[in-house]
Amino acid sequence: MASNFIQTGKKIVAIGRNYAAHAKELGNKPPKEPFFFLKPTSSYVPSGGKVEIPRGIVAHHEVELGLVIGKKGRDIPAAQADSYVAGYTLAVDMTARNLQNKVRKAGLPWSSAKGFDTFTPIGQVLLNKDIPDPHNLRLSLAINGEIKQDGSTGDMIFRIPQLIEHVSSIMTLEEGDLLLTGTPEGVGPVEPGDKVLCALKDAQGKELLKLEFDA
Amino acid sequence: MASNFIQTGKKIVAIGRNYAAHAKELGNKPPKEPFFFLKPTSSYVPSGGKVEIPRGIVAHHEVELGLVIGKKGRDIPAAQADSYVAGYTLAVDMTARNLQNKVRKAGLPWSSAKGFDTFTPIGQVLLNKDIPDPHNLRLSLAINGEIKQDGSTGDMIFRIPQLIEHVSSIMTLEEGDLLLTGTPEGVGPVEPGDKVLCALKDAQGKELLKLEFDA
Ligand SMILES: [Mg+2]
Ligand SMILES: [Mg+2]
Ligand SMILES: [Mg+2]
Repeated sequence: MASNFIQTGKKIVAIGRNYAAHAKELGNKPPKEPFFFLKPTSSYVPSGGKVEIPRGIVAHHEVELGLVIGKKGRDIPAAQADSYVAGYTLAVDMTARNLQNKVRKAGLPWSSAKGFDTFTPIGQVLLNKDIPDPHNLRLSLAINGEIKQDGSTGDMIFRIPQLIEHVSSIMTLEEGDLLLTGTPEGVGPVEPGDKVLCALKDAQGKELLKLEFDA
Repeated sequence: MASNFIQTGKKIVAIGRNYAAHAKELGNKPPKEPFFFLKPTSSYVPSGGKVEIPRGIVAHHEVELGLVIGKKGRDIPAAQADSYVAGYTLAVDMTARNLQNKVRKAGLPWSSAKGFDTFTPIGQVLLNKDIPDPHNLRLSLAINGEIKQDGSTGDMIFRIPQLIEHVSSIMTLEEGDLLLTGTPEGVGPVEPGDKVLCALKDAQGKELLKLEFDA
């Protein structure tokens, strides 16, 4: 069941640089085709929990719309992608930015920079019927009451069906897998002691989901 | 149970460049500390199966000793690492080398280059009692009867307890996770139609495990 994906899911596939303004703020060009990395499911921490920031790590927040996969699929055509989505959630792709910058320069994998325990705070699941248009939602993140990220899922460079088509052309998606769709601009550090509050709202400003954690 | 890890395991953690001669053959220096990447469990294919090589991909074989994790652990000290190993297996870390070279230059994640479906051929599990010394084994791989890799696990740069300590300092290891320990020299392409045969032998030359697949 989709609601149980934190326990049962096997992988987290996270898309990089899927919002042009975010790519730019880190000095990157918008990608010509989607790319992704894997995060381990051992990095989940449910809303209300605590993100642990390891000593020496500069940990950035990246608030993202998550898709919970509802059934197994491979080489899924974009036109059929919707039927593989069981629901939507709100997640933060915590990133060890200093370590990521180091491995990027060295051409090394991103897995450690993205994969620390508690580096994927995760909210409840909303079923498809509650999300009439996943490309018309607002994603926000505030630290200690100050808004840091506030973007629209309408600004994704590659939209959800394309993402599912691309990822499933490389690896089979399975029930309970999570697909993170990229972060809007405004990423920055989370410091020990910070209180972080994220929200997913519809186009009318109605709050659909909340995700909060302490660091 | 360890024997069921292909179905129940959640992640594959694969160590890079853990044999000096292999690091050198790809033009890399031996690393000063271990590094790793994640492969999805959707990439498993059991012995006797077929590795699919996607169009345009140069797929290299990397035969490796695999450790199946037997219990959940985090920040595992090297001195206690043995008790977290449920068993040993033989695996091939298939790698899209041309894609990996491209993403390395661009500072992008390795996940797609390592994560295609069928890119982790995997053997049976041997329990600890059958492997008196995991650092005194021979790993070999032959294509169409010709030996391509034949190395000793004694040549690992970072030994198993250090690998477990390092990985578990970043992410919790869970029952059924697989840790791949790196490949000896001799990597090269597998072409469609090839028959690949791998063996794990003890120091006396006795065959402990076999792994075979077609491409
Ligand atoms: Mg996984
Ligand atoms: Mg992200
Ligand atoms: Mg390898």
